[in-house]
Formats: sequence, C-alpha cells, structure tokens
Amino acid sequence: MVSDERGMSRRRLFGLAGLGTAGVLASGAVGGVVGRATAADVPSPAAARSAERESPAAVRFAGVRQAGIVTPVQDRLHFVAFDVVTDDRAALAAMLRRWTEAARRLTQGRGLGPEDTGEAEGLPPSRLTLTVGFGPTLFSSAEGVDRFGLAVRRPTGLAELPIFPGDELDPAISGGDLCVQACADDPQVTLHAVRNLIRLGSGVVAVRWMQLGFGRTSSTSTAQATPRNLMGFKDGTANLKAENARALDEFVWVGEDDADWLVGGSYLVTRRIRMLIEDWDGLPAAQQEAVIGRAKSSGAPLGQQREFDPTDFAAVRDGRPAIPPDSHVSLSHPANAGAALLRRGYSFVDGTDRSGRLDAGLFFVAYQRNPETGFVQVQRNLAADALNRFTRHTSSAVFACPPGVQGDDDWWGRTMFQL
Amino acid sequence: MVSDERGMSRRRLFGLAGLGTAGVLASGAVGGVVGRATAADVPSPAAARSAERESPAAVRFAGVRQAGIVTPVQDRLHFVAFDVVTDDRAALAAMLRRWTEAARRLTQGRGLGPEDTGEAEGLPPSRLTLTVGFGPTLFSSAEGVDRFGLAVRRPTGLAELPIFPGDELDPAISGGDLCVQACADDPQVTLHAVRNLIRLGSGVVAVRWMQLGFGRTSSTSTAQATPRNLMGFKDGTANLKAENARALDEFVWVGEDDADWLVGGSYLVTRRIRMLIEDWDGLPAAQQEAVIGRAKSSGAPLGQQREFDPTDFAAVRDGRPAIPPDSHVSLSHPANAGAALLRRGYSFVDGTDRSGRLDAGLFFVAYQRNPETGFVQVQRNLAADALNRFTRHTSSAVFACPPGVQGDDDWWGRTMFQL
Repeated sequence: MVSDERGMSRRRLFGLAGLGTAGVLASGAVGGVVGRATAADVPSPAAARSAERESPAAVRFAGVRQAGIVTPVQDRLHFVAFDVVTDDRAALAAMLRRWTEAARRLTQGRGLGPEDTGEAEGLPPSRLTLTVGFGPTLFSSAEGVDRFGLAVRRPTGLAELPIFPGDELDPAISGGDLCVQACADDPQVTLHAVRNLIRLGSGVVAVRWMQLGFGRTSSTSTAQATPRNLMGFKDGTANLKAENARALDEFVWVGEDDADWLVGGSYLVTRRIRMLIEDWDGLPAAQQEAVIGRAKSSGAPLGQQREFDPTDFAAVRDGRPAIPPDSHVSLSHPANAGAALLRRGYSFVDGTDRSGRLDAGLFFVAYQRNPETGFVQVQRNLAADALNRFTRHTSSAVFACPPGVQGDDDWWGRTMFQL
Repeated sequence: MVSDERGMSRRRLFGLAGLGTAGVLASGAVGGVVGRATAADVPSPAAARSAERESPAAVRFAGVRQAGIVTPVQDRLHFVAFDVVTDDRAALAAMLRRWTEAARRLTQGRGLGPEDTGEAEGLPPSRLTLTVGFGPTLFSSAEGVDRFGLAVRRPTGLAELPIFPGDELDPAISGGDLCVQACADDPQVTLHAVRNLIRLGSGVVAVRWMQLGFGRTSSTSTAQATPRNLMGFKDGTANLKAENARALDEFVWVGEDDADWLVGGSYLVTRRIRMLIEDWDGLPAAQQEAVIGRAKSSGAPLGQQREFDPTDFAAVRDGRPAIPPDSHVSLSHPANAGAALLRRGYSFVDGTDRSGRLDAGLFFVAYQRNPETGFVQVQRNLAADALNRFTRHTSSAVFACPPGVQGDDDWWGRTMFQL
C-alpha cells in the first residue's frame, strides 16, 4: 500500500510540477526531505563582496529580487500586517515611496534623520532585510470594493486561502492589505525598522497585527546548519536553498503566466501554528519520532542513520513501515504532497494563555510561485497528519510580494501602480 | 531652588545609606547618573578562567551568590512567575532539589537525558543563568495561610509593594510564589531551560505569568557598553557594576540585619513598564530630551557634553535649569531619590493592543538589599516624573532571592527550609 501510494503520488508530483529534473525539494511544513541542495548557482564571490561593501553585515537592498526571501535566514523576525486606512491611491503610492527610501537607509544601518526613533543608533545593520507584500484586500476589499483602482492588477494567484479542517483562525490576527517582513540578527534592529515604517505610514496604514519570532526554523542556504524547532526536532533539512536557482525558478519566483508586475516576485503565506507544548512534552521521544517520522537527536529519517540520508517510505521496521504513513514527514514530503516551498519560519513564544500553558510554536513563513500549487496543496495533504493533534493554526495570511526595486528612483509597488 | 533641593537630598541620601564614601550609584528607573564605576574589585583572571573552563560561554552555576545578578547582562530574558499548586512542603522542597540539579546541567549546556525537550541540543550554553526567588505569598498566602510552615522564615524586607499613583497593574501578570529569571544570549536556550523547569515542576507549580525580553537596557559590568532603550535613549549609564563590590555590599546584597537564610542573597523587584511608543514618537527630540534630562544621541546629561559627564543640577541654560526639575534623570537621580539599585531590565515587544498600538516597553528588573529603601524609595520620588505621561506600569512583583548554592548537595532554598 505504502509503496503504491508513493508511486502514484510521485507521478502526480512530477506531472504537476514538471519536477523530473529538479534535485531539491522541501516539505511544506515541519519535516520532509528528498535530497540535499547542490552547490550549483552559488552567487559569485564578486557579488557577495559587493553586497558586503556597503556596510559590515549589511544585506544589499536593491536588486532583481526583494531581499529577505532567499537571503540566508537571519535570527529574528518582526512581521507586521497593515490595513490601509485611506482610500487615496496617491497617498498610498507616496507612502510606499517613503517606505522604500527608508528601507534603503535602514538596511544599510543608516538612520532616518531627526525624526528617527533612535533606538538603533550605534547598532550595526545586523543583516536587516525588509520585504513587502500586498494582500488580496488591497485589490478588492472584503465588501468587493476596488478602493485603489487596483482590481485590474490583481495577480492570478492571489486568492484568500481556503479554510482547512482544524483551523482555529483568529480574524484579528489574520489577513491584511499590506505586510512587511523584517528580519535581522538583532530584534532591536527589526523593531526599529518596523516602528519607523509605522511612523512613516501614519494616516495611510495602521497596524493590523504583528508577530515576533526567533530561532529560525529552516535554512535558505547550504551554508546554514539545520536548526531545531520548539518540538526539539531538526527542521527544514531539505528546504529549498538559495544555491539552487533552477528549483527557485520552478517553485518560488512568479513566472510570466501571472500578472506582469509580479513576474520575478513571489507569493508569501504565513500561518501562526501554535504547538501544544505541554502535550508534546508528555509524549515519550519514541512516540514523538513516530509522529514526525524522524529521529529526534540526529534528524535522520526513521530507518536511516544520518540527517541527510534519503527518506525511504518503503523501509520496514518490525514488520511495519519505518516511517509511519500518517507521520508528518510522510504526508508533507514533496513526493507525496506534490509541492515544494521555500520556508523561512521562526519559533515564537507569546507568553502563556489563561490556563498558564505556553502560547508558543512556529510562525510558518513560506514563499512560492503560486499558493494554490504551493501551500494549499501541501496543507490539504496534511489533513490526516499525526502532528495535527499537537498543533493549532491560529493566524493565516497570503500576500503577493513584488520583485525587487532597481535603481535609485524605483519603489515598492511601482510596477503595480504604473505598469 | 534646584541647588537647595540637591543639597538637602544629598544629605538625606548620605544619611540614609551611609553613602559618604561610595563612588558608584545608579538611578532607580530609566535614567540617572552620579559617576562611572571604578575598576576596583574586578574578579581575578584566574577566577574568570575557572568560570570558562567548564564549557565555552558557560557561566559558573554554583557560588556564594546566585549567578544572574551581577553577571554581565546577557542579551535575552525569559522570566517566569509560578504559583505553588500543592500544600505539600516536602514536595516543594523536592522540586527545588530537582530544579537545582537541572540548573547545574542546563547552565553548562548539558541536556537532561531522555526526558529533555530537545530544542537546545547542539546549542552552546550561551551564558545561561538561572536565578530563583521566593515571593511573599510563599510565606503567607493572600488569605494569610501559612501553607508550608515558612511564615517564621519570612524575611524582614519581603512585603508586598505599595500601589503607586498611576499604577495600572494587572493581577494576572503580577506577583507569584516563586520566580525563575532565565538570561542567556540565545532565546532558544532560555526557553529550553524554562520549559524543562516547568516540566520538572509539574504537579507542584504552575506558570502564573511570564515575560520575554531582549536588548538589555542596562549594563552590570564596566566592560559592557551602555545600550539604548525603546525610547531611543542610552539607559543605565551609571548602573551599579559588578566591579564595585563595596557598593554591591551596601545596596544589593542582603546583610545580617535580615533573615539568616537570606544573608548574601538579594531582593528582586520586577515591573512591566509599557511605553506609549506612538505618543513618544510624536514628541520632537528636543522635548524628549527635556523629559529624560539627557541628550538623545550622546547620552550626556543636559548641559554637558559626554555620556559620562557628571549630572549637574545647578547648570543653567537660557535662564532655566539645563536639566528640568521634573525630568526623569532629576527625580530618579540617587542624590534626589535617595537610593541605588542594580538594574538588569530588558526591552519587550508583546505585539499590539486592540487598537493596533505597540504593546512594548521596559521590563524593569532590579536587585537591592531591601525593597523599601530601594525600589519603593525611588518610585515614590518619581510621582511627578515628566516621563510618567509616556509610561504605564502593568505588572509588579517582588521576590527574595537566596544566596548561591555551594557544593554538590546544596539546593535552592535549602537554607530557608533547613536552617
């Protein structure tokens, strides 16, 4: 049965995504691996030096792509979703220009003059990246109103996500007209950036919700070690990596089959996934491993020895599949789920709930070429995931992230407003 | 007027605390300075090497004092207050023994065996310290019940803090029978420690509240640079420092005038001080400086040039006191407030409130020889502080922190239970 399913779903995957030649895949959520990224398509040393020349530990802001997607994952996240509080299209565009100018400076560790809030003065850029995205409601409000004349620009892939079985979404911390993903190695630097964008957006946008994160739960470069998530397991062993440009073109960057202004951008899906930490901690490690499908200490797929060993769903242990068919690795595996995502999620701890239980988990962040064939596809396949007993999705959002700004006069969203 | 007040309050201070010879003082809250710490009483190089021998970036756990008080402030805080959920004195003592054994291992970067939650496997100790304290309700419940036969052990200085004008305290995130202050340079390491203590305390304690923090807002060693708080100002310029043992003996460590078991320990006061960030950001920098009493960029006292210049309340600018009498520096200054504290607070961002405003500020953490002549004294003096317009105290707690554990059989609270 298992090998039959595997054969079928592999064919399905290859048919779906034309994956026959792609060497790097990643699971949609917490586990999963096909193979390790190759070192092909590594940025040239000259390009790397150029990026570092502007300031120590500064990430280049301008470029064909927005920074903060394949950029090696920084240690901290400050994610903010905004509502636009004006109906004035010109005011919105002007704010995006101000934001872009501020982002050029902030990412290089430079302040914003006398109005700067000041708390990052003297701190290095700390690899700050600021990445912007546009939500479905920017193009057509929940009531169907085209507030900014952008309905005609709505990209093909930008639809509200479906409700999945078990979702416990809180609308107050879901959705948003705009988002900013701030990542850096210092939370004071991300806060400083976010706070000044809020200040510069006053009267145009208001914060809808925000989420802080730490301890990246995946890698986006082969140079990064695999981190552990709050379940204690290595996470993102075979995430899509910056070094594999072909897989990124196939699974991450929006192609010419979508809105012209979005080509070269990406779709961002965020999910706040609370982990039922105390329940999880009460489960013996061997049972945790059966739920995940990997060994806790080594990260090896069950039935294998080392973290980067291939995931073998045909392997048998004690007369049963070594990797249980309802394990997270099995169901989220690209060969079974039929999709690959670039994940750059973070752990979060938001204190405790009213009963004193940890309100903690994974803030899932994934970039993809199209949400329907990316996250939605994977999440549908996880309906019977044994891990679901220990997780609750409490927030959900989707955004279209434009390509990078190029040249000194370019700004976030210019192609959407002007194309 | 100003110089008269200064003269009087200096006399008051010296009379109170016998301060005539002490060279180092610190303000009670966000600002304030008398002079810089001298390099006297620096730990010997041999002692420093010994502390580092156990593991890279490990802080020695055992010692005359608990670690985490004068230890150079780490980058992250995870603070937890617990309620004891049993009336069984022996169970409480047994848990404290378990916690102590776990802390010995965790602070050295060692795991806790098969039951370990696992998320710190492979991470360095990251200068983890775990510091324990006992709240007033451990000695006598809110209803006056002596649940553990400890009422007779209640230390002299351990009283509930008074309510101060303007307090907006939430009882659900205030107080607690026990506390653990976990500090480290990696939030995954602090979480791991806290979570395993929660696990080891199951059935004995339950989490009452917790607070995470980042970006230390003071220094406890002359080797540390002065950080900036979320108001954008340098904070803690003249905090008490580990290198000045005489000032610590005078202001931080509990003396023989208190309960025998607490001698060599310290009292901990925590206050969650929300900053009204958006209001603050709307205030021009010059007005912010008048509220604080320092220059924003340099950190110099107003009327002076450099951060560590003396605070001169007699200085006049444009015919008025250079440092406004209602400024935070003026009112919290040891010479005016009559007290010195060892602060090791952290910035926090807990997302946004329902109106989208940042729920962020300072989690104030201060150690002192006696809360009444320490924090309470300072806070009373801040009733007319111009800074109060921009802050709200939302949580408050006080704990008696025992001296350090010594030897392999010692445990947190042994002297309190057995003395």
